[in-house]
Amino acid sequence: MTFKLYNYFRSSTSYRVRIALEFKSIKYEYCPIHLLNNGGEQHQTSYRDMNPAGEVPTLDHNGKIIGQSFAIIQYLENLFPEPALFPKDSYLKAIAQQICENFNCMHPYQNLKTMQYMEKELKISPEQKQKWLQHWITKNLIETEKLIEKHAGTFCVGNEVTAADLFLVPQLFSADRFQIDIKQFKTLSAINTRCLELPFFIKAHPKNQIDFQS
Amino acid sequence: MTFKLYNYFRSSTSYRVRIALEFKSIKYEYCPIHLLNNGGEQHQTSYRDMNPAGEVPTLDHNGKIIGQSFAIIQYLENLFPEPALFPKDSYLKAIAQQICENFNCMHPYQNLKTMQYMEKELKISPEQKQKWLQHWITKNLIETEKLIEKHAGTFCVGNEVTAADLFLVPQLFSADRFQIDIKQFKTLSAINTRCLELPFFIKAHPKNQIDFQS
Repeated sequence: MTFKLYNYFRSSTSYRVRIALEFKSIKYEYCPIHLLNNGGEQHQTSYRDMNPAGEVPTLDHNGKIIGQSFAIIQYLENLFPEPALFPKDSYLKAIAQQICENFNCMHPYQNLKTMQYMEKELKISPEQKQKWLQHWITKNLIETEKLIEKHAGTFCVGNEVTAADLFLVPQLFSADRFQIDIKQFKTLSAINTRCLELPFFIKAHPKNQIDFQS
Repeated sequence: MTFKLYNYFRSSTSYRVRIALEFKSIKYEYCPIHLLNNGGEQHQTSYRDMNPAGEVPTLDHNGKIIGQSFAIIQYLENLFPEPALFPKDSYLKAIAQQICENFNCMHPYQNLKTMQYMEKELKISPEQKQKWLQHWITKNLIETEKLIEKHAGTFCVGNEVTAADLFLVPQLFSADRFQIDIKQFKTLSAINTRCLELPFFIKAHPKNQIDFQS
């Protein structure tokens, strides 16, 4: 059984899937797709044949091709149920999925293609861009923190790592990169710090990938 | 066991969940949340206590509160596995989830709060707004149609209704409302037409809800 992950070190959606793979100790081949070089390698025909949306990540599991980070993570959960990424209780599982989707549906506000469109078509200034990022990312983190506060223990949902933590950590990494002070989100930052000490989060971190650039 | 769905007739995320409830023959109380009246009822404190993001829909199942349409749909699937909304095969299940997420992650580009921000903060013109909607919705439908063409039968994934169809139909409803010619997406339109003849899609349609306004 072979797994190839087409991804980019800095992409938060890629980062989520890498944590899931490491969490479940699944060996995989790392296939870098550089989102900026050569006009964006995700736009090349060979890549778009696999992933018509031209987005990372894409999983190739023995020729079975899957896009969308959350679909990939749930596929891995189906194949390798242990260690589990979701609580057994139906309601807590739904809460974990709600947190994941809160972060997932935030992603379009900060992704590269949105920024490129706004710069080219709407001629937004660097200040407007920063204000946009600040607005949507901060709003999302405030709202998601309120949700997490109702259910958190050591991690986002109770005292075990769940998929929700796999979405939180990359989103705080992105927020920090966009110069948002993540310490203001006390509950989220505390969970983030605890996650970043765990070996599967460390292995999946952008700075530990073969395509890392500072 | 009682279910209350806080939702809005025209919201595509609400529409998805209503189809799931009807598909599984789950009786529920319809609680309208008007997104425009009274400054937007989703912003009221009593609603935000349930749903900190101030978004519809929210499910209340005997006091268990869940937001995010896809988390709600998967919760209903866990509680009532039959009739199933996902293929039994792991790979086809992942494809259905990928299609769902393709539509889900498209939603921020067209939702009310994004439009309100762009009008107020970026001072976009009605023409720029229409061009934005046209760009993102069309791009998403072209890309998702390419994915669906690889897996479609009578419906998005094979010959049975899956969650993917629950996301497709509301998105085409929204696209049409935003004056995009949905007939150009031949595979998607054909599936949409077939779905709209089924009783659970008819019952869930915006025009058949108690808060419908033309």
